[in-house]
Amino acid sequence: MRFTMGPNSYGKSGVRLVRVGRESARHELRDLTVHTALSGDLDATHYTGDNTGVLPTDTQKNTVYAFARDGIGAIETFAERLARHFVDATPSITTARVRIEEHAWTRIGDHSFTRGDGGERRTTETVYDGRAARTASGVRDLLLLNTTDSEFTGFLADEYTTLPETDDRILATAVTATWDYQAEDPDDATFDSAGYDHAFTKARGALLTAFADTYSLSLQQTLHAVGERILKAVPEITEVRLSLPNRHHYLFDLERFGLDNPGVVFQAGDLPYGLIEGTVRREPA
Amino acid sequence: MRFTMGPNSYGKSGVRLVRVGRESARHELRDLTVHTALSGDLDATHYTGDNTGVLPTDTQKNTVYAFARDGIGAIETFAERLARHFVDATPSITTARVRIEEHAWTRIGDHSFTRGDGGERRTTETVYDGRAARTASGVRDLLLLNTTDSEFTGFLADEYTTLPETDDRILATAVTATWDYQAEDPDDATFDSAGYDHAFTKARGALLTAFADTYSLSLQQTLHAVGERILKAVPEITEVRLSLPNRHHYLFDLERFGLDNPGVVFQAGDLPYGLIEGTVRREPA
Amino acid sequence: MRFTMGPNSYGKSGVRLVRVGRESARHELRDLTVHTALSGDLDATHYTGDNTGVLPTDTQKNTVYAFARDGIGAIETFAERLARHFVDATPSITTARVRIEEHAWTRIGDHSFTRGDGGERRTTETVYDGRAARTASGVRDLLLLNTTDSEFTGFLADEYTTLPETDDRILATAVTATWDYQAEDPDDATFDSAGYDHAFTKARGALLTAFADTYSLSLQQTLHAVGERILKAVPEITEVRLSLPNRHHYLFDLERFGLDNPGVVFQAGDLPYGLIEGTVRREPA
Amino acid sequence: MRFTMGPNSYGKSGVRLVRVGRESARHELRDLTVHTALSGDLDATHYTGDNTGVLPTDTQKNTVYAFARDGIGAIETFAERLARHFVDATPSITTARVRIEEHAWTRIGDHSFTRGDGGERRTTETVYDGRAARTASGVRDLLLLNTTDSEFTGFLADEYTTLPETDDRILATAVTATWDYQAEDPDDATFDSAGYDHAFTKARGALLTAFADTYSLSLQQTLHAVGERILKAVPEITEVRLSLPNRHHYLFDLERFGLDNPGVVFQAGDLPYGLIEGTVRREPA
Repeated sequence: MRFTMGPNSYGKSGVRLVRVGRESARHELRDLTVHTALSGDLDATHYTGDNTGVLPTDTQKNTVYAFARDGIGAIETFAERLARHFVDATPSITTARVRIEEHAWTRIGDHSFTRGDGGERRTTETVYDGRAARTASGVRDLLLLNTTDSEFTGFLADEYTTLPETDDRILATAVTATWDYQAEDPDDATFDSAGYDHAFTKARGALLTAFADTYSLSLQQTLHAVGERILKAVPEITEVRLSLPNRHHYLFDLERFGLDNPGVVFQAGDLPYGLIEGTVRREPA
Repeated sequence: MRFTMGPNSYGKSGVRLVRVGRESARHELRDLTVHTALSGDLDATHYTGDNTGVLPTDTQKNTVYAFARDGIGAIETFAERLARHFVDATPSITTARVRIEEHAWTRIGDHSFTRGDGGERRTTETVYDGRAARTASGVRDLLLLNTTDSEFTGFLADEYTTLPETDDRILATAVTATWDYQAEDPDDATFDSAGYDHAFTKARGALLTAFADTYSLSLQQTLHAVGERILKAVPEITEVRLSLPNRHHYLFDLERFGLDNPGVVFQAGDLPYGLIEGTVRREPA
Repeated sequence: MRFTMGPNSYGKSGVRLVRVGRESARHELRDLTVHTALSGDLDATHYTGDNTGVLPTDTQKNTVYAFARDGIGAIETFAERLARHFVDATPSITTARVRIEEHAWTRIGDHSFTRGDGGERRTTETVYDGRAARTASGVRDLLLLNTTDSEFTGFLADEYTTLPETDDRILATAVTATWDYQAEDPDDATFDSAGYDHAFTKARGALLTAFADTYSLSLQQTLHAVGERILKAVPEITEVRLSLPNRHHYLFDLERFGLDNPGVVFQAGDLPYGLIEGTVRREPA
Repeated sequence: MRFTMGPNSYGKSGVRLVRVGRESARHELRDLTVHTALSGDLDATHYTGDNTGVLPTDTQKNTVYAFARDGIGAIETFAERLARHFVDATPSITTARVRIEEHAWTRIGDHSFTRGDGGERRTTETVYDGRAARTASGVRDLLLLNTTDSEFTGFLADEYTTLPETDDRILATAVTATWDYQAEDPDDATFDSAGYDHAFTKARGALLTAFADTYSLSLQQTLHAVGERILKAVPEITEVRLSLPNRHHYLFDLERFGLDNPGVVFQAGDLPYGLIEGTVRREPA
């Protein structure tokens, strides 16, 4: 055979799971979107259409719902339960990747909840290869904005540079952050369910305060400060990856109308936008 | 001429305005999307391309930013200021429609704010015709969910009906609500800026508690209950229009796996969805 | 009762129907999104939750699929069949509104098809009130762009006007057009299935050639020209409603880099955008 | 320092470039979205906010427009020109990644064009590290659908498997394909502009005919067949990566209404969807 398969996977994306906890009259609500991806000894289906090793993506979806019957816990432990099951129970599957996004609701009654559509999500992704589960968690689409304490000066200028320097601008971004958790013994999960929830709360809190506290000379500097603060807050985190779109806000020129504009009226831009991405790591001792 | 113009308008959509209030070290942040639409004596540009009566949409955008210089106030009063200006200052324009959506931010520091992307927006639309400004306000994409206290039984069944009755289901929707404000003297604005803010807070609160409190026999019944509660909460509101998509949650069949599912595990549906729309009015005394 | 129901309707939105015609080895493919909305004597469900007059939205969905079993024909006749059924077969329902969007596919084999995601859709909406069906058809999201033959000069300038005049610009828009068909006898459908297809083809062709041929002094003038051309092409059309977002293309300033830019390099804008809307009508003889 | 930077980059995303070729009265139109990402010696800005090595993302945007002044050519050669410039002209930058999506328009006149909104895009990504430029090209969101010649049987069934086997289903997907081009001498670009266009046309054609011709026993098998056909069509391609969402079409149960449904009426699903991803490689000789 002259054309061989390289890396491949298959699974179910966008599994929308809502679970109601009815242990008391004060119901609990969980709202998750789950994505599964399996890989292993799958040459046969690719080369000849022999599906004897293929656990259908429909089955993967069913498994998600069945496993939620008796409780979900932290999304990290739910992802790990699913990933371990797919590998341990399916001879042809050697690696499972389970990714989950959680949508938070705010309680407004014993069995009533509200939230805005879209918005910030807590995320996790577990990869289990039959021996150890590696888990990365984070947030997506968390909007943050500082109205001041942000400069951008002293940058490199070439023949195409027209951007003026500024010593006071709005700094706004939509954070996607992902951090790796590392247990001492890699065969173990890093945390139990409550431990993951606690670590998430601390990491998210560190992210917000780092953004609010940092006097920013560049969005790159803010990125490093945010990553450092998360690493300090949660010792089990080894690395933070951050993707920070620079949501430009342009000071609107009001002089043409006989008005000044001392950092008051801005036009929020859309396309194009800057995109600052980077990794911050804990240095080995 | 055999082909004549019927109703028409033109304007600027998607004007993204962010305003920072710097009166104190504790900055204020406002984030609006503004849409303008003007109409009047505009036959010439349509029939011959004579633009002498056409105030450019670019000018309408500039006006939005200039008017924000010294403060915005409630979105209702800002919309009315703009609408009155476009008609009163432009001979060719007889009617202005200004629509605003406000995106709420949560304070996390003196000059730092956060919000999830997307989400609930407060809305208003003012139409000014040179004499009176009529103002309608509301919310968009406010998600609400009850985990119980919702039935759907006793409905009409024809040859194509296969839906089973249910005496306990999840009821979830994304509310778009619009209500009309009516001043006693139609030449006046109904409220000042603080009055609009106060009325909005009361109407939104009534919406949430009505949804949470109502034992629902149909989403139509919930719609009426919500409308009635808003009308009771704010006497200046004469009519409420509600658009309630029924975000179906299907109880997942776990019996196939030897598990029961007493209202615990649900599949959130996407397309298709039910759509319930209706108007609730205050009966003239 | 002090709070009464005004206009209301309910139905199923986003019903995704794909039909394969297997009359020959050369399969036919139709891809529709259908939305239904019924109204009538529905006070009981709103006031008391008595659903005896409520045909479930799930049933409306089932009906769409069942009616497609033996063929769809033009979307207009399919919408009319559905609308008539809902009113004629359901005592509580007095008016049905059925809206359909059709996604076109391009054949690449006897049973193989391709299309880009998103894109232009043919649309229709029928309202049937138990006596007559009124049908409006059109297109959505049809992008059109002229690289020249577009000016914008001689417009009204006030104190907030900074837009320079231009005698050569890109004119780009995403057309949403809706036209009303009128039969001589309002109790009849205007056309049979083939007649609707023929009328649509002629109207769409007129729209394209009018846009390409018109030397534009304003987008309003282009709007009128497009409407007039559609009315001339199809005598059964009585009125055309057009919504034309002005997708601004800004000539990029290259002088700063020692380059000229004679109408060559443009930055396509996103928000904000102009929005020109209008109706063109056939004058009664 | 205990917290160090790992991999990082910064650049401008969503640069919307439209270019009009006016060499003759028959204008040419190009419509691109460009994304740049630079990396190099950027520790200073991350650690201390010293921006002396930071070429602003605004400058990167300006460069895109300036470089388009005298023509674009194939998107691959335009990406390579930009990537080489950013590295070769900027001492602090050691690697540039330039990604481009091209939106195709259909000519309807000498200076008039049409397309549907959204839709299939031709893509490329070039990475230049100061020595060689590696280029990968492909398509995004190319929808393909076969109405027959697709089975899914003989798959693995566990306790959560409920999917019935099928010997005739609709197979539909939205192709994202990316292929690597490899020149014999890695210091050279693989092709000139015309060569890239020719290779793209052959690869896309092979993709379409492979999808249409393959009798599919699994979407994985189709994936391999498509990859193999592309590799055969263009010898300079070394590897094809394919991401194929399985856009499920469910045969609608019409028996409940006394109707058969011999592969005619389908409900197009949305969420969840299967996702099949894989790489097909040319085996070294």
